[in-house]
Amino acid sequence: MADDPRPSRASAARLSLYLRCLEGWRRDGRATASSKALAEALGIRDTQVRRDLAYLGRVGRRGVGYRVADLTDLIREALGIDREWPAILVGAGNLARALLRYRGFAERGFRIAGLFDADPAKVGQRIEGLEVLPVAQLRRRARRLGAELGIVAVPWEAAQEVGKLLAAAGIKGVLNFAPAVLRLPAGIAVVNVDLTIQLEQLAFQVQAGRDG
Amino acid sequence: MADDPRPSRASAARLSLYLRCLEGWRRDGRATASSKALAEALGIRDTQVRRDLAYLGRVGRRGVGYRVADLTDLIREALGIDREWPAILVGAGNLARALLRYRGFAERGFRIAGLFDADPAKVGQRIEGLEVLPVAQLRRRARRLGAELGIVAVPWEAAQEVGKLLAAAGIKGVLNFAPAVLRLPAGIAVVNVDLTIQLEQLAFQVQAGRDG
Repeated sequence: MADDPRPSRASAARLSLYLRCLEGWRRDGRATASSKALAEALGIRDTQVRRDLAYLGRVGRRGVGYRVADLTDLIREALGIDREWPAILVGAGNLARALLRYRGFAERGFRIAGLFDADPAKVGQRIEGLEVLPVAQLRRRARRLGAELGIVAVPWEAAQEVGKLLAAAGIKGVLNFAPAVLRLPAGIAVVNVDLTIQLEQLAFQVQAGRDG
Repeated sequence: MADDPRPSRASAARLSLYLRCLEGWRRDGRATASSKALAEALGIRDTQVRRDLAYLGRVGRRGVGYRVADLTDLIREALGIDREWPAILVGAGNLARALLRYRGFAERGFRIAGLFDADPAKVGQRIEGLEVLPVAQLRRRARRLGAELGIVAVPWEAAQEVGKLLAAAGIKGVLNFAPAVLRLPAGIAVVNVDLTIQLEQLAFQVQAGRDG
């Protein structure tokens, strides 16, 4: 029915949130869920949920709703996370340590397979079982590791150069923590994680709550 | 003209992005900007930009556009970041170290004034000039520091308990890095930073790009 059977970015963002909800419900032992329950959990409209889930094909049954396990699998498939995504991480600082210790990535198939830094003092160190490799080896190693995603955890001054290296290494998607706008060749996806934006939005909500 | 002169959350999110753009232009020495230029930089519609900026009052002039410096100030004011926001940080791990070293927060008025941890082995340590304090002192210290924002950088098992402590300490907004849904009293704003969602969305974009 739809011209494009692929979810929009906004729908994909909501699919991630439905997935978090469903996973929680699954842990709580819930077998079925309704679009209404998902809408309530997220504070959005029921019709929006149903439109988003329509991308997944026919999954719900009238009066019964969705089976939590099936819907979870279908969302994972639609998002492309029903498989493993080898990733490399550039910048072996505190953020890298935090990311490497973070269990959530591996649980969702994001396996950090290589860790790189430009600082000779860091090269050769082991962090969470990974040896820090020199960025000069990034291109060769990334290809050997089959890495498709790159995580940029370097200061902003170094970010553009790292972006170039990742592009040359055949990386297809970049998660950028550096507060810099990366200029990358077309065809490479970028998701920016700007923590000051999150804090700004929090400040806005606190202030709006107080004024209201 | 509008019923509510306050930007919606979606508008506020875009205001943060306009601000990043404007700050870049300001550094580049640009004095004026148009809604069209902002729309192009963000890949959204011109009409959307103009609607968002209408919350700021009359700022643009026909044929001239907006003065970058004025628009920057007005957006900062609308977002509530034209002042300092003292914050406390709970969880003195690698993420905390990364956040404390991150210059962007202080530059935008987010001053981390207190650092807390439940681990007696960490209490008393100094990280980036801040002494790690026991969580038992959180309530008293947070009030004394005038902290309005709290940053949760603890493992998910500890997050709910920390959320309770922050609420008891009079914190009005929580930036939550723990992959847990915090249940907090009404009136406390929460912004969740779920890094796996960011990676999921990146994977989706990479896959969509390949299929397309």
